[in-house]
Amino acid sequence: MTAVGISIRRIDGTEKVAGQALYTGDLHLPGMAIAKVLRSPVAHARIRGIDATKARAVPGVLAVLTRDNLNVASNAFGAYVRDQQILATERVRYVGDMVAAVAAIDDAVAAEAVKLIEVDYDELPAVYSVEEALADEAPLVHEKLENRKDPGYGRGGTHIVHERSNICFHFRHERGDVESGFREADQIFEDSFYFPSAQHYPMEPHICVAQFEGDVLTVWSATQSPFPVRQELARVFGLPFSAVRVIVPYVGGGYGAKSGIKTEGIAACLSRMIGRPVKLAFGADETFKTICQPRAKITLKTGVKKDGTFVARRCDVYLNGGAYANSGPSVTEKAGYRAHGPYRIPHVLTNAYSVYTNTVPAGAFRGFGGPQVAFAYESHIDMIAERLGVDPFELRMKNLLDQGENFSPGDTPIDCDLKAGLKNVAQAIGWDARPNGQKNSGSKKIGIGIATAMKDGGGTNKPANAAVTIFNDGSVLLSTGSVEIGQGMRTAFLQVVAEELSVPPEKVRVAALDTHYTPFDKGTNASSATSIMGQAVQKAARDARRQFLEAASAVLKAPVGEVGLENGVAVYGEQKVSFREIMQRNFRDSEGEIRGRGYFKVGKDENVPLGYPSPFWEIGLGAAEVEVDTETGEVKVLRYVSLTDAGKMIHPLQCHAQDEGAAVFGLGQALFEDLVYQGGELINGSLIDYRLPRFDDVPPAFKTFIMEGGGGPGPYGAKGMGEGGILPVAPAVANAVFAAVGKRLQAVPLTPGIVWEAINKR
Amino acid sequence: MTAVGISIRRIDGTEKVAGQALYTGDLHLPGMAIAKVLRSPVAHARIRGIDATKARAVPGVLAVLTRDNLNVASNAFGAYVRDQQILATERVRYVGDMVAAVAAIDDAVAAEAVKLIEVDYDELPAVYSVEEALADEAPLVHEKLENRKDPGYGRGGTHIVHERSNICFHFRHERGDVESGFREADQIFEDSFYFPSAQHYPMEPHICVAQFEGDVLTVWSATQSPFPVRQELARVFGLPFSAVRVIVPYVGGGYGAKSGIKTEGIAACLSRMIGRPVKLAFGADETFKTICQPRAKITLKTGVKKDGTFVARRCDVYLNGGAYANSGPSVTEKAGYRAHGPYRIPHVLTNAYSVYTNTVPAGAFRGFGGPQVAFAYESHIDMIAERLGVDPFELRMKNLLDQGENFSPGDTPIDCDLKAGLKNVAQAIGWDARPNGQKNSGSKKIGIGIATAMKDGGGTNKPANAAVTIFNDGSVLLSTGSVEIGQGMRTAFLQVVAEELSVPPEKVRVAALDTHYTPFDKGTNASSATSIMGQAVQKAARDARRQFLEAASAVLKAPVGEVGLENGVAVYGEQKVSFREIMQRNFRDSEGEIRGRGYFKVGKDENVPLGYPSPFWEIGLGAAEVEVDTETGEVKVLRYVSLTDAGKMIHPLQCHAQDEGAAVFGLGQALFEDLVYQGGELINGSLIDYRLPRFDDVPPAFKTFIMEGGGGPGPYGAKGMGEGGILPVAPAVANAVFAAVGKRLQAVPLTPGIVWEAINKR
Repeated sequence: MTAVGISIRRIDGTEKVAGQALYTGDLHLPGMAIAKVLRSPVAHARIRGIDATKARAVPGVLAVLTRDNLNVASNAFGAYVRDQQILATERVRYVGDMVAAVAAIDDAVAAEAVKLIEVDYDELPAVYSVEEALADEAPLVHEKLENRKDPGYGRGGTHIVHERSNICFHFRHERGDVESGFREADQIFEDSFYFPSAQHYPMEPHICVAQFEGDVLTVWSATQSPFPVRQELARVFGLPFSAVRVIVPYVGGGYGAKSGIKTEGIAACLSRMIGRPVKLAFGADETFKTICQPRAKITLKTGVKKDGTFVARRCDVYLNGGAYANSGPSVTEKAGYRAHGPYRIPHVLTNAYSVYTNTVPAGAFRGFGGPQVAFAYESHIDMIAERLGVDPFELRMKNLLDQGENFSPGDTPIDCDLKAGLKNVAQAIGWDARPNGQKNSGSKKIGIGIATAMKDGGGTNKPANAAVTIFNDGSVLLSTGSVEIGQGMRTAFLQVVAEELSVPPEKVRVAALDTHYTPFDKGTNASSATSIMGQAVQKAARDARRQFLEAASAVLKAPVGEVGLENGVAVYGEQKVSFREIMQRNFRDSEGEIRGRGYFKVGKDENVPLGYPSPFWEIGLGAAEVEVDTETGEVKVLRYVSLTDAGKMIHPLQCHAQDEGAAVFGLGQALFEDLVYQGGELINGSLIDYRLPRFDDVPPAFKTFIMEGGGGPGPYGAKGMGEGGILPVAPAVANAVFAAVGKRLQAVPLTPGIVWEAINKR
Repeated sequence: MTAVGISIRRIDGTEKVAGQALYTGDLHLPGMAIAKVLRSPVAHARIRGIDATKARAVPGVLAVLTRDNLNVASNAFGAYVRDQQILATERVRYVGDMVAAVAAIDDAVAAEAVKLIEVDYDELPAVYSVEEALADEAPLVHEKLENRKDPGYGRGGTHIVHERSNICFHFRHERGDVESGFREADQIFEDSFYFPSAQHYPMEPHICVAQFEGDVLTVWSATQSPFPVRQELARVFGLPFSAVRVIVPYVGGGYGAKSGIKTEGIAACLSRMIGRPVKLAFGADETFKTICQPRAKITLKTGVKKDGTFVARRCDVYLNGGAYANSGPSVTEKAGYRAHGPYRIPHVLTNAYSVYTNTVPAGAFRGFGGPQVAFAYESHIDMIAERLGVDPFELRMKNLLDQGENFSPGDTPIDCDLKAGLKNVAQAIGWDARPNGQKNSGSKKIGIGIATAMKDGGGTNKPANAAVTIFNDGSVLLSTGSVEIGQGMRTAFLQVVAEELSVPPEKVRVAALDTHYTPFDKGTNASSATSIMGQAVQKAARDARRQFLEAASAVLKAPVGEVGLENGVAVYGEQKVSFREIMQRNFRDSEGEIRGRGYFKVGKDENVPLGYPSPFWEIGLGAAEVEVDTETGEVKVLRYVSLTDAGKMIHPLQCHAQDEGAAVFGLGQALFEDLVYQGGELINGSLIDYRLPRFDDVPPAFKTFIMEGGGGPGPYGAKGMGEGGILPVAPAVANAVFAAVGKRLQAVPLTPGIVWEAINKR
């Protein structure tokens, strides 16, 4: 292959590094106003009244938006259930909920005016934790939920609706009969685990610019899901899709934070009100109050034979969904589906719940429920090994699924070799020669831990479309609705197109994303860009190639099947004619172009209830060597090995970079990150107080292995990747800490205080 | 019809009036630099050297561009012959020729720096008029011309190349044998006429913003020909089309001034040099020095039978093309083809020349050579009538072509009734009761004049493409490469789409123009939008309709042929289902869209040399009542009647507005406008000195008649229009002045000084 499998220069690299790349924050339209939002200081309250008189009187204020002048066709939206509003009308449900917004001539005026909006709150009792929310007589975060949609992800499970409950969503997945499985077992182990909430922390917070020009709404937004945003805005404003144009400039990171309406509804309302463009940019502290990862409590009960074979597993997954559903239900369904881990277990019963609380709404976050359950099952298996007195590596080798086996009846069989991967990471970390914690002397103890995790990858139920144009000069333009959020997928797609058309990559470009023109796509998420959109891209390129070969055949007077294409030249016998010349000669009169189109969607399996098969299996294997300072509790990761399977790396350097980035995400959750509340108040939601991994936290020895098993559904056997690397980090680190100091921590992050207490507590 | 033939609210009206419409001048990109151009103060010179040292030293200057650092793949461009350069390298050829350019942090710094660029000129002898340029031993404006292209407009004629001559282009058109025709004639009349140069004077001068982002060039430009600009920029910079993106925001008027590279080459060079976006905006005085209408001298020699029948006509048309060809050759070819007028004349010989001089380059201007020759032949016919002692109305009725007759062998027959139109305007102006000049008493004399003119309309050789998308919610988006230069064509196209799809116009929008996405079009000119692009639009809508009917047929379970569409609803028997529901049910899984495509190009007639038939005939009939103040020479038009044939008015109000605007253009050239030179120096090229028609010049009684003869090639029998109205104004006014004061003026504009002299001269 000439273009794929090569680490070409990233197509957006130069402009990003040189400061030429245009982000939404760089936009400056004539007359553009700046908007700022007023947020609730209380966790749960009825809004008695809003008085914006003083705010409106501030010189330079152009408009104040409240429930009293919202003026939309529909003030209810949401991916699963329409429980969100552009601005709160009746109640606020968490500290940070948006209540009003100001548009002003500049930042400072807007900020001043926001403070002058007077809101009269009638506080209501609030619930912050899952326990509180599920207690009898707990106050309800939402009194009534209507129009629940099928999140569309579930496989082999059921949805159970709980009325008059803070259970937003409940997914139940079962095979075999766990009770009889437990009876068969020789031993039963039950452990609970706790995984933190976290902030995605993209370098660029949420931001958009909205403009009504006559009766056409244009929104420039840093969004991962431009078409769903178009759909929601069209419904909210009662506009046809042709009157709602979403344009996506460069995006400074997403990680799941930027799906669905965030800033766009408010900015559009204000723009329509004042007849000027409006920019609404959240500060980083506001992004903290917009969306987060769902905190989890997971209880696993596993029945095991005396030889270590798993027989039955019951998983109970509770996710704190915060005040609004967002994609929480989809995350919950995935967490539930994945909760029993990549193991051979005949009897499984999983119940996964997303629970409303009066805290920051939780939703899509890189890993999408996978990291939470992986921490649970990969800690749990080490704890079982400890109690059985067996090597955790061996226990995994006994129970891990083999390639070709089923994760779940009727789903895509396992498409790669987990055991081979485990052997790899074990060897790389030096498992056989690992230090025994007790043999460590001094206050710093070393230990090694491993973890083998997996998530189904590629999303489901997502139609993907792409278009490839060959211009009259033979140059090529790809149009795709996948958003470049930093993962480098536009470069990878360019390579696929160049490969399929046999043209040099320098002749290919990727078009800007504009919902007026870009073919429909459901959203950039689920490690699905290469694997799902990649197939649409490949088909579009092949459609263009087919049409081009017809043109070449006419020009060269050759049978279509005998024309070859190489490096931008059409070849037949002695004739070698450039793409440019083929186009210009074949389309001499019309100066025409060729437009290839490609569509792909995973086929539905009618035999499987809720039955979209998993496109592929995204594995995340990890091994960590940690050093624990027993005097301070500090945990340092000295060496880390990450392994995943990309199927086929389109762009090797970008794949390694994605896996490294994922591992560092996992490191943050293993050691540093959590959203800390005092009652309903988020107290560490800022750049200063939230502890992210820094470059000096990256392990000095850090290696990523990427297998190319070729078993993926994407072009050339590619899978998606970019999330697998997070999954094993927290459990590998926790397992390593146990190896180092003999203390089992069942909650992350392993902050120094927590670790020190565990070491020194009786 | 439900959408066509109705004057719906103009789709861009609200935002233009409310100041929300975004023009190129409104664009503000981060880090954007401002560019200014240095222009030659001499008419013809060799450039010995350029010293930009002082300019570069000015604080705030980011770059100075000269021939020494141009750094392009090709510094030669032009529609007919590549005689133009981004910046002059060897010589300058007119006062105003661009020699250098500065990019700076703001306007003021750029202007200051430009003045400090030192250019050493070695002056050469110059020619300013056609006579000077054609004299023996006249200095050559261009030593060598290469790569001449066929302008592609000619019909029934030949191109004659003159080497070592200032004749840029020579078109010769002949039928029969004029010499034998003259021998047959009873009388022969020969008269010469002079038509001025003029400035298009769009409210928005030439402007663009160019930005290199990595290796993709994006240019926002107020251009009438985005795709030719793309092509030229691609060639100049050695880039593939996929790396050159031309976006056209709202355009504040074009009239032919904005075709081809004007500001874009310089702005792009500077942007690439400094790594920042660059805005280059010409002041109005600079637009004067960029492009103009070609000044004309036309000699007509007509052989006439004693009963007034025309037998033979020889036309010699000399156009002063200025220093660079631009579209001058195409204008010359058209002027030549049209020069003999809409009359039945068996023997015709026309020679039309575009001549290089060291003056502002001439090119496309509303009317495209038509007004010049119409002034000639419509003055000439009145002069013949005077000398024959017959009524000019009757002389026209005797000789005008009838519907169905041939203007030229093999061309499209005349598609409307000129004589009926003439009777209309004659009646409307009160021809039968017209005042006789001598009978006028007092110093103010009244007279009436008429004129019947015609041009072939619709351009030729222009492939047009359009696309119509039906989104998943049933709403509709039209994509067309025709530029909205103020004529309202996007509204008219929206109506055609709404009509073809049977949807309410409120569900339809027109997409922004972006060469990455918009289907290829050759340019907005030649009154071709409705007649040529309109057909592509109609076909695209029909293609979308066909696909939609298939979807509806599937959803309604009805045979395709029995599904009806009305007002956004699909109907079959009792079933009435909205477009939204049809789309969502038929494309439930894929959330798909429908894309209709349409292509149109006038077919080539192999029997006709240079043989593209005229798409339609654009007629311009006019009658003027003037008042001449014999004491001052001032001419006022008291009443004016304009008549044209639109075939079918898509949007009646816009058609009338276009005709009124055209007539006012004609009034400017009849009475006020000319580019005045002193040697090579244009001395009235500014807003203060150039006399445009003002609102108080518009005749108090002013009526436009628009026939709907249905004979056009566009949708529903539509023709193009918008230029016909200019053609008869100058001759009708000159004929009226003759009627008023008995003096024949063979040159326009009829300024007071000129008229007074003619009246009072012996």
